[in-house]
Amino acid sequence: MKLGDLGEFGLINRLSRDLINRPGEVVRGIGDDAAILNLEGPWWLLFTTDMLVEGVHFSLDYATPAQVGIKSVSVNVSDIAAMGGWAAHGVVSLGLPARLSVEEVEELYRGIRQAAGEYGLNIVGGDTVLCPERLVINLALVGFVEKGRAVCRGGARVGDLIYVTGSLGKSAAGLYLCRHPDLTVDPGVAAFLKQAHLEPRARLRAGRVLSRAGVTAMDDVSDGLAAELREICLASGVGCRVRARDIPVDHRVVVVAALAACDPLDWAFSGGEDFELVFTVPPDTARNVEEMLAAAGEECRCIGEITPADKGVVLELPGGRCVPLEARGYDHFAP
Amino acid sequence: MKLGDLGEFGLINRLSRDLINRPGEVVRGIGDDAAILNLEGPWWLLFTTDMLVEGVHFSLDYATPAQVGIKSVSVNVSDIAAMGGWAAHGVVSLGLPARLSVEEVEELYRGIRQAAGEYGLNIVGGDTVLCPERLVINLALVGFVEKGRAVCRGGARVGDLIYVTGSLGKSAAGLYLCRHPDLTVDPGVAAFLKQAHLEPRARLRAGRVLSRAGVTAMDDVSDGLAAELREICLASGVGCRVRARDIPVDHRVVVVAALAACDPLDWAFSGGEDFELVFTVPPDTARNVEEMLAAAGEECRCIGEITPADKGVVLELPGGRCVPLEARGYDHFAP
Repeated sequence: MKLGDLGEFGLINRLSRDLINRPGEVVRGIGDDAAILNLEGPWWLLFTTDMLVEGVHFSLDYATPAQVGIKSVSVNVSDIAAMGGWAAHGVVSLGLPARLSVEEVEELYRGIRQAAGEYGLNIVGGDTVLCPERLVINLALVGFVEKGRAVCRGGARVGDLIYVTGSLGKSAAGLYLCRHPDLTVDPGVAAFLKQAHLEPRARLRAGRVLSRAGVTAMDDVSDGLAAELREICLASGVGCRVRARDIPVDHRVVVVAALAACDPLDWAFSGGEDFELVFTVPPDTARNVEEMLAAAGEECRCIGEITPADKGVVLELPGGRCVPLEARGYDHFAP
Repeated sequence: MKLGDLGEFGLINRLSRDLINRPGEVVRGIGDDAAILNLEGPWWLLFTTDMLVEGVHFSLDYATPAQVGIKSVSVNVSDIAAMGGWAAHGVVSLGLPARLSVEEVEELYRGIRQAAGEYGLNIVGGDTVLCPERLVINLALVGFVEKGRAVCRGGARVGDLIYVTGSLGKSAAGLYLCRHPDLTVDPGVAAFLKQAHLEPRARLRAGRVLSRAGVTAMDDVSDGLAAELREICLASGVGCRVRARDIPVDHRVVVVAALAACDPLDWAFSGGEDFELVFTVPPDTARNVEEMLAAAGEECRCIGEITPADKGVVLELPGGRCVPLEARGYDHFAP
C-alpha cells in the first residue's frame, strides 16, 4: 500500500500501538499536542517533537535561514503552549546539505537563539549531520505543567463555548504573498502578513493563563481551524457549531484575499500555521477566562459552542444556514 | 565558508553559544552524550537526540527497515547509557519518501517497537512528514539518573585505568561484509558481524552499573575508540596511553580483516558504531568495578591508563614503541 493511500492520520494509527513499556509513567502518550509524563514532585513533564523539511514546510527562496530557525522553535513551543505548559529545554537536529555555507547555518541558529530567548527556552543539545538534498530541522522539546493542569483535546463538553486567540488566516495570506511576489499590495501589509507566515510565534503566555483558568480542551491551530475543531470533537466525543461571522480575520487578510480572489474564511479554516490557540470553556467560567486573558494582554473571541456528537461539526453561514465543516476544502460546500 | 572547511566539531563550537536562558536548570548542556537537567526530587533528567539519514548513516540496500528502526533507537539509548542513566521516553520523527510503502514504514516501526521493548523505553509521540529523496529518522530521548551519579566525559584523572566493555571492530567488519557481499566468509561469521553493524544494541545495563560503581568518565564508542579517547582526554584535561595488545577484538573480526587486507585494530580505533562503553576508574576501585560488571553479566577489559596532558594521547604498539593515536586514520602511523 502506498503512503498516499493511507494518509498521515491513518499511518499514525497503524504505527502507534504497543509502544508503551512503562505504562505507570505515562499520563498521556501519542495523540495530543505533547505527551504528558509523570515525575516526582508537583510537575508533569511534557515532551514533543516536530520536523521541518525544506521544500515541504519552508522554502529558502523566500524564507531567510533565521526565519526558518524561528519557525522551527515556534512550531514546537506551540505544542507545549497548547497543553498549557511552559517550554524548558530543547534539542536540535540539523540535516545539512553541503551547499549551505557556514554563515547560513549560523544565521539559522541565530533564529533559533532569538526564538529560544523569547520563549525562555534552553537549547541543551543536538545533532548535526549531512543530508544532501534538503535542509531538515528537527526540534524536540520538554516542558512542564502543574500536575492536573495539562489541557488535552478530549475534555470538551456539550454546552462549552469555543474560543480562539488572536486572528486566523494571516499565515495563509503571507504564504500567498510569498508565492505571488508580483501582487500589488501595500508594502506594510505585505511585510506584516509575510512575517506572520515566516516568523510565527507561539501563544505560550496565553496557554499558561488558560491552563489556570479552567478551560476544558485546547489545541494549537497548526493545520487550520477546521482540522483542529475536528480533532477536539473526535477526542471529546462531541460535535460543534461555529459561526462564520465570528471567526476573527484581520482586515489585511481580507484585503489580500480579495486581490487573490480567495475566500479569507478558507484561509482561516484550512490555511493553518497561525499557531493561535482554540479552546473550550464552560459558559459559567467564560467571563473569567476572557478577563484573565485580557489581563495578560491576550485577545480571544467566542466563535461557537460544543454540541452533541450526532450534530456533527458544522459551520453556521452568515444567512443562518448550517453546513458541514470539512477539515479540508472549505470551498467545496460554500453556498 | 563551506561546511566541509569547518567540520562538524568546529561548526558545533560556533553554534552552541548563548543558548541557555534558564541557567539554574541546566547541570550540563551541549558537549556531552546527553544534557543533564535539574528536576525536583532525587533524579536528574537526561536529554539527547540523534538523526539518521538514508545513504549517510544507513542503506536500505543491505539494512531492512526493521534494522534501521532498531539502530535509530540504539544510537540514542547509547547516549543515555554513556551518562549512566536509564532511558524512559522517546519521540520519533520520520521524514518519509513517497516511494516507501506502508508496509515498509510498519516494518521500520516494528524495529523501533522491538528495541524500545528491550530497553524498557516508552515511545510517546512523534511527527511524520514527507521527505522526498531520503528516509530521515530522528529520535529524541529523555532518561533519568540519580542526582550526582551522571558520568560525564570530563572526570578522568591522571592514574585512572581505562576500560572498554565488550569488543570493538565488529560493526566495521559487518559494514565491510555488507559492502562486499562476494567475499567468501563462513555464513555464521558473516551473519554475526552484519547483525552487529545493522542491529547494534546499547550497553544500557552496563552504564547503570558503572554509574553506581564510581567510574570517573565515560563515553559510548559511536565514532571509534580513538575519537572517544580524545574526547575524554580533551574534556578532562589529561592524556592517555592505551596498549594495542589489550584492545578487545573478536576473533571473527580478525578473520574478516585478514580476508579484506585490513588492520582489525584500525576498525577498532576508527570504525565506530560499536556502541560499547569506554570508561575510566581510579586504580583502587578497579577491582570492584570489574566484579560489579561481571555480576551483571557484562564484560570489560583494561586497555590503558590516564596520563598527564603533556604526554598526549598515545598508543603503545606490541613491540613497546609509543605512537600518537590519531582520531582518524590509525593506518598513517602504523609501524
